[in-house]
Amino acid sequence: MTVRFALLGAGRIGKVHAKAVTGNADARLVAVADAFPAAAQAIADAYGCAVRTIDEIEKSKDIDAVVICTPTDTHADLIERFCRAKKAVFCEKPIDLSLARVKQCLAVVKETKGTLMVGFNRRFDPHFAAVRQAIDDGAIGKVEMATITSRDPGAPPADYIKRSGGIFRDMTIHDFDMARFLLGEEPETVMASASVLVDKAIGRLGDFDSVSVILTTKSGRQAVISNSRRATYGYDQRIEVHGSEGLVSAENQRPVSIEVAGAKGYTRPPLHDFFMTRYTDAYAAEIAHFIAALASKKKPKPSGDDGMAALALAEAALKSVAEGRAVKVAEIA
Amino acid sequence: MTVRFALLGAGRIGKVHAKAVTGNADARLVAVADAFPAAAQAIADAYGCAVRTIDEIEKSKDIDAVVICTPTDTHADLIERFCRAKKAVFCEKPIDLSLARVKQCLAVVKETKGTLMVGFNRRFDPHFAAVRQAIDDGAIGKVEMATITSRDPGAPPADYIKRSGGIFRDMTIHDFDMARFLLGEEPETVMASASVLVDKAIGRLGDFDSVSVILTTKSGRQAVISNSRRATYGYDQRIEVHGSEGLVSAENQRPVSIEVAGAKGYTRPPLHDFFMTRYTDAYAAEIAHFIAALASKKKPKPSGDDGMAALALAEAALKSVAEGRAVKVAEIA
Amino acid sequence: MTVRFALLGAGRIGKVHAKAVTGNADARLVAVADAFPAAAQAIADAYGCAVRTIDEIEKSKDIDAVVICTPTDTHADLIERFCRAKKAVFCEKPIDLSLARVKQCLAVVKETKGTLMVGFNRRFDPHFAAVRQAIDDGAIGKVEMATITSRDPGAPPADYIKRSGGIFRDMTIHDFDMARFLLGEEPETVMASASVLVDKAIGRLGDFDSVSVILTTKSGRQAVISNSRRATYGYDQRIEVHGSEGLVSAENQRPVSIEVAGAKGYTRPPLHDFFMTRYTDAYAAEIAHFIAALASKKKPKPSGDDGMAALALAEAALKSVAEGRAVKVAEIA
Amino acid sequence: MTVRFALLGAGRIGKVHAKAVTGNADARLVAVADAFPAAAQAIADAYGCAVRTIDEIEKSKDIDAVVICTPTDTHADLIERFCRAKKAVFCEKPIDLSLARVKQCLAVVKETKGTLMVGFNRRFDPHFAAVRQAIDDGAIGKVEMATITSRDPGAPPADYIKRSGGIFRDMTIHDFDMARFLLGEEPETVMASASVLVDKAIGRLGDFDSVSVILTTKSGRQAVISNSRRATYGYDQRIEVHGSEGLVSAENQRPVSIEVAGAKGYTRPPLHDFFMTRYTDAYAAEIAHFIAALASKKKPKPSGDDGMAALALAEAALKSVAEGRAVKVAEIA
Repeated sequence: MTVRFALLGAGRIGKVHAKAVTGNADARLVAVADAFPAAAQAIADAYGCAVRTIDEIEKSKDIDAVVICTPTDTHADLIERFCRAKKAVFCEKPIDLSLARVKQCLAVVKETKGTLMVGFNRRFDPHFAAVRQAIDDGAIGKVEMATITSRDPGAPPADYIKRSGGIFRDMTIHDFDMARFLLGEEPETVMASASVLVDKAIGRLGDFDSVSVILTTKSGRQAVISNSRRATYGYDQRIEVHGSEGLVSAENQRPVSIEVAGAKGYTRPPLHDFFMTRYTDAYAAEIAHFIAALASKKKPKPSGDDGMAALALAEAALKSVAEGRAVKVAEIA
Repeated sequence: MTVRFALLGAGRIGKVHAKAVTGNADARLVAVADAFPAAAQAIADAYGCAVRTIDEIEKSKDIDAVVICTPTDTHADLIERFCRAKKAVFCEKPIDLSLARVKQCLAVVKETKGTLMVGFNRRFDPHFAAVRQAIDDGAIGKVEMATITSRDPGAPPADYIKRSGGIFRDMTIHDFDMARFLLGEEPETVMASASVLVDKAIGRLGDFDSVSVILTTKSGRQAVISNSRRATYGYDQRIEVHGSEGLVSAENQRPVSIEVAGAKGYTRPPLHDFFMTRYTDAYAAEIAHFIAALASKKKPKPSGDDGMAALALAEAALKSVAEGRAVKVAEIA
Repeated sequence: MTVRFALLGAGRIGKVHAKAVTGNADARLVAVADAFPAAAQAIADAYGCAVRTIDEIEKSKDIDAVVICTPTDTHADLIERFCRAKKAVFCEKPIDLSLARVKQCLAVVKETKGTLMVGFNRRFDPHFAAVRQAIDDGAIGKVEMATITSRDPGAPPADYIKRSGGIFRDMTIHDFDMARFLLGEEPETVMASASVLVDKAIGRLGDFDSVSVILTTKSGRQAVISNSRRATYGYDQRIEVHGSEGLVSAENQRPVSIEVAGAKGYTRPPLHDFFMTRYTDAYAAEIAHFIAALASKKKPKPSGDDGMAALALAEAALKSVAEGRAVKVAEIA
Repeated sequence: MTVRFALLGAGRIGKVHAKAVTGNADARLVAVADAFPAAAQAIADAYGCAVRTIDEIEKSKDIDAVVICTPTDTHADLIERFCRAKKAVFCEKPIDLSLARVKQCLAVVKETKGTLMVGFNRRFDPHFAAVRQAIDDGAIGKVEMATITSRDPGAPPADYIKRSGGIFRDMTIHDFDMARFLLGEEPETVMASASVLVDKAIGRLGDFDSVSVILTTKSGRQAVISNSRRATYGYDQRIEVHGSEGLVSAENQRPVSIEVAGAKGYTRPPLHDFFMTRYTDAYAAEIAHFIAALASKKKPKPSGDDGMAALALAEAALKSVAEGRAVKVAEIA
């Protein structure tokens, strides 16, 4: 079975998905839509697919599934439209910045018996997936504590920050999902500390650039998340999980793994410059999972509910910072 | 100048210090005291020093300094006695489990113009000291976030737990000191999560075995501490500090650093079995610093105030767990 | 410009090149030929190209270049035929097992002004290429000594050994090319030691499975090569180059880079299982270089002469083993 | 039992052994001799032992063993004198630069039933010893190939080179011993390449500064040695052994193991500055082995024969360079 795709949104992340879809033997990219015709045309030219409007794609009989890479504030609407149009939906995170809107949207998905997968790509990174697999294989016994370090190479422009929903909803949300993925139990309380240490402009917009979070589950499992919007040495992405029998960890990946030794010491080149180069394999594996799920009529993961759960943790973290206390997730969701 | 030492307490940590003192070219171990005569005699035999009572040492004119390695509940009394006796005092952490008693004791130190150094040995580990040095050298710019991972190889017996003052005062206290050492700014608030995941007996004694802590300074610098009372792979001791220009870290030390590769992969032996083997060099450097300070008439560091500050963080952490909120250190101290 | 390719030979390595060609935006795979029609058809189906005979391809006007992945004893003939047919030729190593035949073939390439690139894929591995780049950037000063470690995961079957030309011509030849690539000066003498330690069947065929080689250039630069036909921990591929100002090295690549720590130590998974997974990126970069050279009318490297030089080193190594002496390359070539 | 030592030679390596002896609970340093009285006095002052002449030490009844750290050309004479004087002898390598003289000397050792241990310190490095132990434990199956990398931080002055016996007898000799230690089978043939790449002054003295050696045993096991007199990044000391079941290796040790990451990459400090800091633990373990052997009336290892065997390999290597061929060790010994 070949899944016939349309791509909605031909921007930076849209290109990543176009490549993932066209490189997959069980998929075909049939059409692409974008508010900027030139962007859509560029993808159409590169991969030999058609440019169509979103309306046309909604009605296209030769489309089985859509990949939503449009701006965040259009996600929920498009999910609803394409679930109603009986297309399987892969949507970039987040579903929406408002938890209420997410709930509404997921109600439509349920009502239409739609298929929705949310793009938490890191679960599909081969190294992070191998960490999860090692846990499943019993390599570290019972999970107790997770440590997630995630730092961007450089702070985004003010314009991006404004539309981002803030660091917890935009950046930490990936780590919240990762914590849920690794802990194997839902976080019950959230404690967070947030500062502006990198760029005062971020602070002026009411956002933070440096945050630390502790998540605690009912049985007492803990995850610690450390985030910064800037790391001079590249895109820093590490996880480790401590359990009753041991520790499993995934170190940073490097674009070039050489080392030069000289009078000043031993030097390895910096890390990847961002997620597009760091997570190339993850994006391919993510789409492959979506396709395989469609082929086998199984629900793809992470689901809409996973998207909502991560967003609820983001809101709890914000509330924790504002009120200086441990916030129960139950207060939010 | 040769500093003439008496050792008070000939137990496990007393032996470590006896070795550090006798191995130092500027020091001489003159006498040792212990409630168990056999323990004192063993050290006297090994290093050719005298066995004396604490009273005798207090009056000994051939003693310049004492190293206090007796049980915790005797520390404050002995510090006061020996400051009054005009001996320089090196005391194992903690000064006391009660912050009020510590304050009282430090008042006596001040009043007698005594010299007191508190045994936070990790500051003197060559690798951790090099991290601090790198920060001082400007290698990472302005400090922003520290991550401290500290796991013991195995949980102590219930008997030890009872007298320990609990995990925050007994174990995390080292990490609180390390956080202060690394952040270069006093923590203002403490958030902590604490669980019993390793040994239910610890929970029955009202203590915890797995804790995560976030410390935040006034300017927003953050330190994250992750502790467990048990790590199957050995004594896990790591630090890293993220700053405006980069990251500096110190990995675990290993007793034997070979690697064996075979069909199942690449395997390196476990870490050190505990602090005595892991921090051998740190103990020697710590005593050397104390001796050098005496020789140059400078105040040795960490001071009694450093001991008190770490204890205050421990109390704040306990309160944070009890009340589910961010606790200001000012509430405690 | 799009380079239109035909693939000659649809076996294991043919598939690797089919993928590299079809994944390249500046290339198109037009046709495939194989003595086994089913093998050719499989590639044609997977990539949407035509099945043709070698004769047909020779005459095809819609073919600019061929990739020769047929059995070794057909390489030289095919190179000659396709140079005469004015197609650019990319040929898997070796050109031939006989140095005399190689010379003859290269004369034809020259006479026809043909374009020939030989498939020493390792030069194009991003990590090894970065080692070369670091040297070119002056990171280690003047090159002095290179160390090349190369071990296959498991010995090939007797049948393969028989047709292989022996370990020096089949396996070490890659390391001979790498040594030339790294030393930046032609080896003048070869000393080699060769044993049968892995599989006696290999010895019965007159071949070896474990060899060490020293190459020395005129100015005294040295390269040491260590080969084994079997490594239980995977495909072991490492290089390091020592120079007047420092050392540059490239460690093994790993399919999954996690680490599990437990009571028995710290374990990382084994290496790649063989060249197809280890050198995926190298194969893509190799074809990209060939295509870019055709587009810019430059000679692609490694050339036919590079192929001949590596073969001459293999013959010198064989002679060194047989005669127990340092063999001058000039005696061979 | 306490072994009473005299130290012959109070130079650089003499100080290392003085520290090793005095730090050993089962040994006592009774006396020290040196042609320069001030050098002897310095050690006497530091460790509280007597200064005596070599003649006096020879007759001293309170001396059980001597550590010979005098210039190389006195070693053989002193070994003979002290074996005759019934003192156990620990002698720094080499016994002598002339194989004939070594044979003569060992005959005296035998005739007097003397105890002689030769100072190949690297066997006692905890990491290299752990490699040997892993082999003994069967971790890599049957030994097949060893790789030994050994580079000094900087070339010694011409004056040292003149008296050194040349790089093979002075520097590579440690690696020859290590190869014998690791291979578990005597090398049968030696092939060597030697160049002057570091310092032309070394070449003018008829010596080399960059050498590569292949040793082959009767059953075909191979060891490869790579030496340089200069490494800008510190004292480079690595071994690895490949066997039928896997690989065991010991990486370089570092004085400080921190890492700093910044815009230019990840940097670790250089290696140790030389053998005194790198092999501190090895020197202590070496003397401990000597003492334990005396206490248990066993022959200490490495023996005089081990010293001779390594020297024979050095001579074979020199001959291999001179004659451009594989030299049988049997031709030498």
